[in-house]
Amino acid sequence: MIKVAILGASGYTAVELIKILLRHPAVAIVAATSRQQETPKLSELHHSLTGRLELRYEPFNVDRLVASGVQCAFSCLPHGASMSCVAALLQRGLRVIDLSADYRLRDPNVYAQWYGESHEDLAHLAQAVYGLPEIYGDEIPTAQLIANPGCYPQTAILGLAPLLAGKYVEPAGIIIDSKSGVSGAGRTPKLTTHFPECNENVSAYQVGAHRHTPEIEQALSDVAGEPIEVLFTPHLMPMDRGIFSTIYATPRRPFSQEQLLELYRAYYARAPFVRVVDHLPATKDCTGTNFLDVTVRVVRGRIVVLACEDNLIRGASGVAVQNFNRMFGHAETTALL
Amino acid sequence: MIKVAILGASGYTAVELIKILLRHPAVAIVAATSRQQETPKLSELHHSLTGRLELRYEPFNVDRLVASGVQCAFSCLPHGASMSCVAALLQRGLRVIDLSADYRLRDPNVYAQWYGESHEDLAHLAQAVYGLPEIYGDEIPTAQLIANPGCYPQTAILGLAPLLAGKYVEPAGIIIDSKSGVSGAGRTPKLTTHFPECNENVSAYQVGAHRHTPEIEQALSDVAGEPIEVLFTPHLMPMDRGIFSTIYATPRRPFSQEQLLELYRAYYARAPFVRVVDHLPATKDCTGTNFLDVTVRVVRGRIVVLACEDNLIRGASGVAVQNFNRMFGHAETTALL
Amino acid sequence: MIKVAILGASGYTAVELIKILLRHPAVAIVAATSRQQETPKLSELHHSLTGRLELRYEPFNVDRLVASGVQCAFSCLPHGASMSCVAALLQRGLRVIDLSADYRLRDPNVYAQWYGESHEDLAHLAQAVYGLPEIYGDEIPTAQLIANPGCYPQTAILGLAPLLAGKYVEPAGIIIDSKSGVSGAGRTPKLTTHFPECNENVSAYQVGAHRHTPEIEQALSDVAGEPIEVLFTPHLMPMDRGIFSTIYATPRRPFSQEQLLELYRAYYARAPFVRVVDHLPATKDCTGTNFLDVTVRVVRGRIVVLACEDNLIRGASGVAVQNFNRMFGHAETTALL
Amino acid sequence: MIKVAILGASGYTAVELIKILLRHPAVAIVAATSRQQETPKLSELHHSLTGRLELRYEPFNVDRLVASGVQCAFSCLPHGASMSCVAALLQRGLRVIDLSADYRLRDPNVYAQWYGESHEDLAHLAQAVYGLPEIYGDEIPTAQLIANPGCYPQTAILGLAPLLAGKYVEPAGIIIDSKSGVSGAGRTPKLTTHFPECNENVSAYQVGAHRHTPEIEQALSDVAGEPIEVLFTPHLMPMDRGIFSTIYATPRRPFSQEQLLELYRAYYARAPFVRVVDHLPATKDCTGTNFLDVTVRVVRGRIVVLACEDNLIRGASGVAVQNFNRMFGHAETTALL
Repeated sequence: MIKVAILGASGYTAVELIKILLRHPAVAIVAATSRQQETPKLSELHHSLTGRLELRYEPFNVDRLVASGVQCAFSCLPHGASMSCVAALLQRGLRVIDLSADYRLRDPNVYAQWYGESHEDLAHLAQAVYGLPEIYGDEIPTAQLIANPGCYPQTAILGLAPLLAGKYVEPAGIIIDSKSGVSGAGRTPKLTTHFPECNENVSAYQVGAHRHTPEIEQALSDVAGEPIEVLFTPHLMPMDRGIFSTIYATPRRPFSQEQLLELYRAYYARAPFVRVVDHLPATKDCTGTNFLDVTVRVVRGRIVVLACEDNLIRGASGVAVQNFNRMFGHAETTALL
Repeated sequence: MIKVAILGASGYTAVELIKILLRHPAVAIVAATSRQQETPKLSELHHSLTGRLELRYEPFNVDRLVASGVQCAFSCLPHGASMSCVAALLQRGLRVIDLSADYRLRDPNVYAQWYGESHEDLAHLAQAVYGLPEIYGDEIPTAQLIANPGCYPQTAILGLAPLLAGKYVEPAGIIIDSKSGVSGAGRTPKLTTHFPECNENVSAYQVGAHRHTPEIEQALSDVAGEPIEVLFTPHLMPMDRGIFSTIYATPRRPFSQEQLLELYRAYYARAPFVRVVDHLPATKDCTGTNFLDVTVRVVRGRIVVLACEDNLIRGASGVAVQNFNRMFGHAETTALL
Repeated sequence: MIKVAILGASGYTAVELIKILLRHPAVAIVAATSRQQETPKLSELHHSLTGRLELRYEPFNVDRLVASGVQCAFSCLPHGASMSCVAALLQRGLRVIDLSADYRLRDPNVYAQWYGESHEDLAHLAQAVYGLPEIYGDEIPTAQLIANPGCYPQTAILGLAPLLAGKYVEPAGIIIDSKSGVSGAGRTPKLTTHFPECNENVSAYQVGAHRHTPEIEQALSDVAGEPIEVLFTPHLMPMDRGIFSTIYATPRRPFSQEQLLELYRAYYARAPFVRVVDHLPATKDCTGTNFLDVTVRVVRGRIVVLACEDNLIRGASGVAVQNFNRMFGHAETTALL
Repeated sequence: MIKVAILGASGYTAVELIKILLRHPAVAIVAATSRQQETPKLSELHHSLTGRLELRYEPFNVDRLVASGVQCAFSCLPHGASMSCVAALLQRGLRVIDLSADYRLRDPNVYAQWYGESHEDLAHLAQAVYGLPEIYGDEIPTAQLIANPGCYPQTAILGLAPLLAGKYVEPAGIIIDSKSGVSGAGRTPKLTTHFPECNENVSAYQVGAHRHTPEIEQALSDVAGEPIEVLFTPHLMPMDRGIFSTIYATPRRPFSQEQLLELYRAYYARAPFVRVVDHLPATKDCTGTNFLDVTVRVVRGRIVVLACEDNLIRGASGVAVQNFNRMFGHAETTALL
């Protein structure tokens, strides 16, 4: 059994992660930390865990985690808060899967520009592997630190990768119009996520200013081998879960829809969690799973990619376990089907 | 034109009230107060008012309201905060419709017991009229102070009044199982009303301890002429608006469903906003209106009453305007159809 | 009082239309037709109309409508079915506001191509006025036949008109990514609109093949004075009402956001129902109203327009009454505020 | 591996059942039947199964199922249709878990009265075991035919069993006020389950006439050892899944809340899927699981029981697998945690 700890275990991604790990035959959750003073049982904050996990929250303490025999920590802390805890654990030789944004952007200047504070753990930043298994899968088994990818970026990156890998579309002018359920905003009550405000409502937010933009561009530029620029517009949808991204790109030469579908099928032939589908996908087909469904259409000379996922599972906790499986030599789908 | 002011105009009932009053041919909204320091335009807080009302929030100031020629104030302040403002306005001769709970309970000891603080305006409490037009309609035209009724109580009181007025059911053992949309909880973000918590969820809350219990019992005891005791269970439903109450009572002698429907139709023959319906009602039939729909069934020797309304309109702001119309001599339905 | 009839009065747009017209001081609804054999009261099919309208459904009969003194008919019939009824009424001198798509496309070949059947009333097609008051307002007062605009097209057309009128953006490559509530699909139960299928779900549909595409292009080409081509992608959102369109266009020269907002404000200075807002709009701000809210942003050299409305009111029945008001000489906002 | 077949595999309970069985280490799904002529892959009708199950629908054919080596069939057919298929399979020696209502009511006259048709398989009816493991668990291991319980009844029966087993409450006058998500109505589109009709809406239906009434009374009478009569009122809630039952009973002698909770904890001490909780439960805590959460309160001399579950899992497919596990000697929780 691999002993794991969950840092910042009070939010939605932590709860999803715990539910997945409880099904994992080779994992024991031995600690869950919280920045609050109180140390209630996790099930007191999250009633859905009643009878499933007897653990209590504890303050973050590296020595205690090391003494408990923790081999791998999942950090569900917010960005900024995550990097100090992660650094401490890495120094003691633990492996870490960081679900925050702290180690996703290779360039600390880009981090500072988009997150408004300077990066304080440059040493580890340099060795972090961006944990999108379908793109960076070979680097994951030996990584000590995984920067688990953001929810929106996965639909954008995996939606565009087959086109950019083959340089089939123009590198500029790509539009990503994304629609997300409300759980993506976290568990802290705010007016924008207050039920009577966001229920029966659709709106855009952070137009042209969302922090997932540089993350998308970094990975797409890696895939393309040239700089990629995207226009990313997130929208809030009145539902719990799910991200749906509608992506518009300009082909460099004419393609038929069937050619493109074939291209996608070939590209993801060995990816168990990317389903290239003929039909138009829907977020609900992915709800509660680690699947990302994608299809592609040709409309008036443009390519339209439609990709969706469960933002809490594929978009966060599911892909974290997928990374964990690769890191620790388990079948990639363990606990995820 | 009657000049009116809205106190505590930042919440949902205030916005609904403003939208109704903007349609009223004899009303001019001249002031809206807020307890915040800032004085933005109302439309900056409530974008739905853009282009419809140019008013800015102002601090509560009796002199200023009097100088503005305000004749009637609607208080949308929370209980406790409302009574001090209301008292000041009444002393200056204004008429007040108080949407808070402060003047609903005749007995200050009952108020103290359920609201956890002593009543500080006993003088005006004694003269307040409980503003349920279908029951206390005769007292409303001359009232200086209307205690506007609560949302749940209206479905319970109007649902049971025809039965209790005729002493057709047992005074004890009445069960009121109510289901409410989330807007009833107000506009302040809380974990319980955070979208991912209450969406796709049904739960009961304050079982046996909800403050609307004594309000329901006071009015029903008035109607019955004897003490009435109810067991009231509120539930939270994943929707914006609407209250649906399922009420169970034990008849003192056998009734047919048709006899009961006839009884209800006669009782509400002159009530333009109570619709006694043959079909099973649904909250959506009342959404956005001041109607309260009610029907009655006989099941296994029990009487089942089903009553519903829009909690923000009939349950608060609509009935407030209905009271206003009676107070100022307008047709009862003005601005409400 | 102007006597009006509603044809095909069993769906959602008809019910909304009736509720608006019941508030109109100069209108009497004297007939409502249905293609069903039964002639129940409208309130038996639509419980929300209980106590508000005593009318019964009747079969469509021109003579009877003429004899009733009907001056204006609103057709809520589906496309194809609408044109035969409309033609008969026009021949008898009535004025008609057709909410179907039958008279929206000037070119009958385009109609045949997108609607799959040939147009059978070419005579009246030639004289129909496309009823978008902010664009074709001058032609409406004297029109006998108004082709009431589609729901999606209004957000697209009004969202882009200020840019195209001044030839500020490229005529090709415009992308319209629209999100709609489910009521836009009508009242006939289908699997795609079955609650457990579309609730908590987001999906795209009719990608590149939606019938509103040529309607959008026709009006935008009128405004631009040159052919405009758009890529239109509709999505289904889990909510009752509301359309939100995110529109991407390439400017011909650099603009600042403030310049664009100023341009929009000037363009709509005399349009009481188009609100050019600084904030990011949200469908809920327009729910239940005839307002269309729009703003504009500049992101990475592209222009992003964000426009929203209530699809049943502004998108159908509200704008129909706005057209009616212009046709019969009433203030444009009558019954709509 | 135990080979199983799913009959009537096109609805929601079948899809949930398949997803659970795909996780079961000892089960192979070898056939799925449908009454339609077409034989598409299951994943063509249910996109969520894409890549998870390659099976095609086939017509129901006993010989073929026997030849395939099927040992256990789960019938998801509607009542009436189920019994003829079930009878044929039982005659060939297969074991059957019937999710329809056909074998739940021991008395064929009661079946005829509530389901409107006579029972046509009296032989097997007599040997069916009502598959509520917490009550009839001892009979399940040897049963050939399990009548899988209804969704509402489980909350009512398990909610009341501890009280009735000890004869602590009056046998008459029990009120069960239940609230259900829309998936309980099945996958066939109807006006009542059309999104714009039932979204943002709460209503009661089949008041005093719902077919789960005799099923509840039969099981509760078994538990109590005397006839129990209930008043059952189902309501439709605007959400996909979940049943919440609020149950009112009159105690025969005074109880404290803590006494009652202790009683419940003792009664369910060995039931891994019944969680007796101190807090007020919520359907969302059970969503996607086989748990049934229950608590109990004392209010004004009455006992109020609050019980909830996921109607598709605990209410149908999850408890079916729980029964399967008992029948075939697997740990009760296999594939269900």
